[in-house]
Amino acid sequence: MTRKIILDCDPGHDDAIALLLAHGNPDIDLVAVTTVVGNQTLEKVTRNALSVARIAGITGVPFAAGCPRPLVRAVETAPDIHGETGLDGPVLPEPTLELDRRHAVDLIIDTVMSHEPGEITLVPTAGLTNIALAARKEPRIVERVREVVLMGGGYHEGNWSAVAEFNIIIDPEAAHIVFNAGWPVTMVGLDLTHQALATPEVAKRIAAVGTKPAEFVGELLDFFGATYKEAQGFEHPPVHDPCAVAYVIDPGVMTVRRAPVDVELTGGLTLGMTVTDFRAPAPADCRTQVAVELDRERFWDLVVDALERIGDVEA
Amino acid sequence: MTRKIILDCDPGHDDAIALLLAHGNPDIDLVAVTTVVGNQTLEKVTRNALSVARIAGITGVPFAAGCPRPLVRAVETAPDIHGETGLDGPVLPEPTLELDRRHAVDLIIDTVMSHEPGEITLVPTAGLTNIALAARKEPRIVERVREVVLMGGGYHEGNWSAVAEFNIIIDPEAAHIVFNAGWPVTMVGLDLTHQALATPEVAKRIAAVGTKPAEFVGELLDFFGATYKEAQGFEHPPVHDPCAVAYVIDPGVMTVRRAPVDVELTGGLTLGMTVTDFRAPAPADCRTQVAVELDRERFWDLVVDALERIGDVEA
Amino acid sequence: MTRKIILDCDPGHDDAIALLLAHGNPDIDLVAVTTVVGNQTLEKVTRNALSVARIAGITGVPFAAGCPRPLVRAVETAPDIHGETGLDGPVLPEPTLELDRRHAVDLIIDTVMSHEPGEITLVPTAGLTNIALAARKEPRIVERVREVVLMGGGYHEGNWSAVAEFNIIIDPEAAHIVFNAGWPVTMVGLDLTHQALATPEVAKRIAAVGTKPAEFVGELLDFFGATYKEAQGFEHPPVHDPCAVAYVIDPGVMTVRRAPVDVELTGGLTLGMTVTDFRAPAPADCRTQVAVELDRERFWDLVVDALERIGDVEA
Amino acid sequence: MTRKIILDCDPGHDDAIALLLAHGNPDIDLVAVTTVVGNQTLEKVTRNALSVARIAGITGVPFAAGCPRPLVRAVETAPDIHGETGLDGPVLPEPTLELDRRHAVDLIIDTVMSHEPGEITLVPTAGLTNIALAARKEPRIVERVREVVLMGGGYHEGNWSAVAEFNIIIDPEAAHIVFNAGWPVTMVGLDLTHQALATPEVAKRIAAVGTKPAEFVGELLDFFGATYKEAQGFEHPPVHDPCAVAYVIDPGVMTVRRAPVDVELTGGLTLGMTVTDFRAPAPADCRTQVAVELDRERFWDLVVDALERIGDVEA
Repeated sequence: MTRKIILDCDPGHDDAIALLLAHGNPDIDLVAVTTVVGNQTLEKVTRNALSVARIAGITGVPFAAGCPRPLVRAVETAPDIHGETGLDGPVLPEPTLELDRRHAVDLIIDTVMSHEPGEITLVPTAGLTNIALAARKEPRIVERVREVVLMGGGYHEGNWSAVAEFNIIIDPEAAHIVFNAGWPVTMVGLDLTHQALATPEVAKRIAAVGTKPAEFVGELLDFFGATYKEAQGFEHPPVHDPCAVAYVIDPGVMTVRRAPVDVELTGGLTLGMTVTDFRAPAPADCRTQVAVELDRERFWDLVVDALERIGDVEA
Repeated sequence: MTRKIILDCDPGHDDAIALLLAHGNPDIDLVAVTTVVGNQTLEKVTRNALSVARIAGITGVPFAAGCPRPLVRAVETAPDIHGETGLDGPVLPEPTLELDRRHAVDLIIDTVMSHEPGEITLVPTAGLTNIALAARKEPRIVERVREVVLMGGGYHEGNWSAVAEFNIIIDPEAAHIVFNAGWPVTMVGLDLTHQALATPEVAKRIAAVGTKPAEFVGELLDFFGATYKEAQGFEHPPVHDPCAVAYVIDPGVMTVRRAPVDVELTGGLTLGMTVTDFRAPAPADCRTQVAVELDRERFWDLVVDALERIGDVEA
Repeated sequence: MTRKIILDCDPGHDDAIALLLAHGNPDIDLVAVTTVVGNQTLEKVTRNALSVARIAGITGVPFAAGCPRPLVRAVETAPDIHGETGLDGPVLPEPTLELDRRHAVDLIIDTVMSHEPGEITLVPTAGLTNIALAARKEPRIVERVREVVLMGGGYHEGNWSAVAEFNIIIDPEAAHIVFNAGWPVTMVGLDLTHQALATPEVAKRIAAVGTKPAEFVGELLDFFGATYKEAQGFEHPPVHDPCAVAYVIDPGVMTVRRAPVDVELTGGLTLGMTVTDFRAPAPADCRTQVAVELDRERFWDLVVDALERIGDVEA
Repeated sequence: MTRKIILDCDPGHDDAIALLLAHGNPDIDLVAVTTVVGNQTLEKVTRNALSVARIAGITGVPFAAGCPRPLVRAVETAPDIHGETGLDGPVLPEPTLELDRRHAVDLIIDTVMSHEPGEITLVPTAGLTNIALAARKEPRIVERVREVVLMGGGYHEGNWSAVAEFNIIIDPEAAHIVFNAGWPVTMVGLDLTHQALATPEVAKRIAAVGTKPAEFVGELLDFFGATYKEAQGFEHPPVHDPCAVAYVIDPGVMTVRRAPVDVELTGGLTLGMTVTDFRAPAPADCRTQVAVELDRERFWDLVVDALERIGDVEA
């Protein structure tokens, strides 16, 4: 059974790969793509999303732009990781898709409300501003969404501070809204995604696909690998966002653990930390879980398989 | 020259009087009314707004319901002041107006964007959830709005804590967004509105108008006066919300002082305080000002005059 | 009946005047002087205290140095107000008194414990580090002290931030300890001390005393007046610290109001605010009060009288 | 070469075992024992310390009582773990040692200042109130102490909240002072001590010693094991405090990792968290390290060996 998802993203190198995975995998029905400020400005990530759509041959899916800034905090982007365009490295084609005229928040709401309860899964791989606003503007989506599978946070690891991750700390109030809304949330955080390293073997497998989209992914990884080494000392870059999509495709690709998760809003050292309580078995009404261990082989199989299915695309 | 305003409210006894003042005064063109959770649940205050519209004879103005809960915090209402219905005291008629089908946030955005820059003034007399969401969903309204004249906060006085006021503390993140957005904000806070006491002389003037709407106001003040005495020890009830409307009609009705205002989001004792810096002359780029002293006579003249102009309404 | 006080200070121009007032006034028995980091480093303010002792002719009173830094925060001094020495302006004589060998915290504890309960009044005119440490090291002093009359804080005014005062914000945790200890606390804050302005008339009266200590005070006011004009825009300098001493001498010199006071420790905008709750009559067990209105004439009479009594001192 | 230590504790079942280990091990020279409120009130833990001294046959070591309450927060004890006496389970003998007349803070200061620089190691196994006060009262001890090896905190584990440990959260301001003072700090936190479980095999080894002190330890573990199972779901109780002593005896008993550690003072969810930054190699000036992995065999060998050396004590 295919799973209908809305991908809310800020491409971003790993977002681009997440988009390719979602498009190429036969068990995912990508019903909408929304963008939000994050790795770069809204304008840049939106253009990037449309360019990636062209590279991947995505048509017939509405793309909508969302919030240009977080709820409360000032805009913070990540040029050290993603470059000035947000997708530095490859040469990007001019987009051919046109943006949906709706605001991303309304596209999310309309899509969820026009499907049956339990049909739509939200897959945010960026700051949670759009998702939070949608939940506040139309609270009925909370019961109607099947689940939220998000890339962000971490229970023991941080990257933007000692204990906080970029997608959460750039809009902690939005994250607080999403984690406390009441829908099921799977946090695919740094503890998991730091296992999804694009090693040379991975790069080789991707190159072996031999298509233009695969070549594009190779160029993404080259750039991303260099900045991750420079900025955070990683030998091979962690490819965060496709992990969330992979979990929707096949929950067996990772182990998860149920535990209460909340977002710290006031800490001087811990702002934006996704505080996870492992002290006791999760209470019966706990609706949050965190991803723990990745089956690396199976994960990269999914990515390579998606690229193979996409094949060569007429640009 | 008349001033076009959107009244964003949570009736609420003083909101009801604000609505009557805005409707009855010839210098105000009430272009939309929006509601938001606050004094009572969204459902209750929305129904109250429509009932007051019928009492006041308001037609041809769109009314839209907005957010049923604050951005981040849990819902907190004020039944001790406004009763279980949010407008206890008078018997309310069934509404005759129908709600606009749009969300309040979209009605605000549409209204501002479809008027000329500088035409629309926002007058929030409730928690700032709707206004904050509108500013985040469509940032262009910030430059387009003429000014925001809000009832809320206080530079030296608090009511819901030692230093915070109800409209701000129920959604401090929204207030933070509104005060920091960049548009001109006039804070008509408790320091001002605690001067707008409905004394027996005031009640007598209102009764003397002799119409049904005036009688309705009398009943509001009776209930409101009793709860304010009981809950906060006031001899006569402070009638907060019409003060904001009065300032739009006639800025001379109060003195104001330019000063930086910001909203405390993390204080253990000061959450939701509208921190106002009077230490030095306001900097040149300061776009916030606070109301200081009310010309009581002139204020009540405006209220009584509006009631007289409304006259007796065919329900 | 004379009042035995321990003056805990960080001279500092106004501390120096407080010391002169305490020494010169016949109703005060100055039993100890302790110093603490504040207006300048501990070393500097301690030397200043001893120099002022020589100027004032103070002998037979133990002086002890206390804490060189606040409990939790980094050291912050006030050279913009008090200059590099902490007492810039006059030429200071070499001290002749020797420091007590005890730590200020132990001198405070020993003094309080060796007197009868209710005999000793603490008069802190600096950050509250010493007092807080004494209360934590020997909790029995809390019941034994008659009262704490401190210069610091403010219920509506701030100077080091919009809502916080220097003595409190430099060690807010210490202030929290002192305000919550349980002993009676009178807060002589900025709301009061900004009424104690050294106008030209005041300066003239002091000059007319015609002694060396009075001349010294004149030089202090000249320097202090210039920095207060430059740094905070005051036409005439507020002479904070002697106000606390004056209240001990004669409570009639100011009106006070009982109200709960607590210290904000976590606010992003309000750290160190002395949050005062005026919303209702103070509860029966409230042990804090705040100074509201100064009888200026009576206050300066006390200062001038003390200088006259001190007369000319053999250095 | 023996290591001179001051044990600052709040016995407490595991503190008692730490005291026995420090006394029995030939490489430790126990130069002072100080007590502080924590597992129970100061009065109770102080009496417990003296009773344990009698059980262990400790003589000629000064014991001093310290702070009866944390710096800023209210007293919080742990009766669910340690019972009403703080050392429930065994029957305790009347103490025979007399308390040193000095305050623990002064005993710590005197001891450190009267030894050569680098001679004294502080081993706190309780809240850090005494140590923090000593560092603030006599800042010179910071350079003079060899190192601080403390039981408390955790980099990934919490017990009193999702992310905070009891010894830190009961006085986070004191912990902040200790971790930021500048001396070398080894944090032996929950991540380590949750490996020091008193399994039945461990209990058997201890019982086999066959002395009264060993029997006493057996009774401690019985009680402690039952409350840890009940309160925190542990199959076998973690014996925290002796781990810190063991590290002083033999650093090879655990692996440690250098990393910056700081204490969260304002977090709504994270108050008292010992925030540890593992993102990059520790900077050259980093003076904090955290214990990571315990050599369980070697640890219990030390405990059993100490009991054997203590032998049977004439009470």
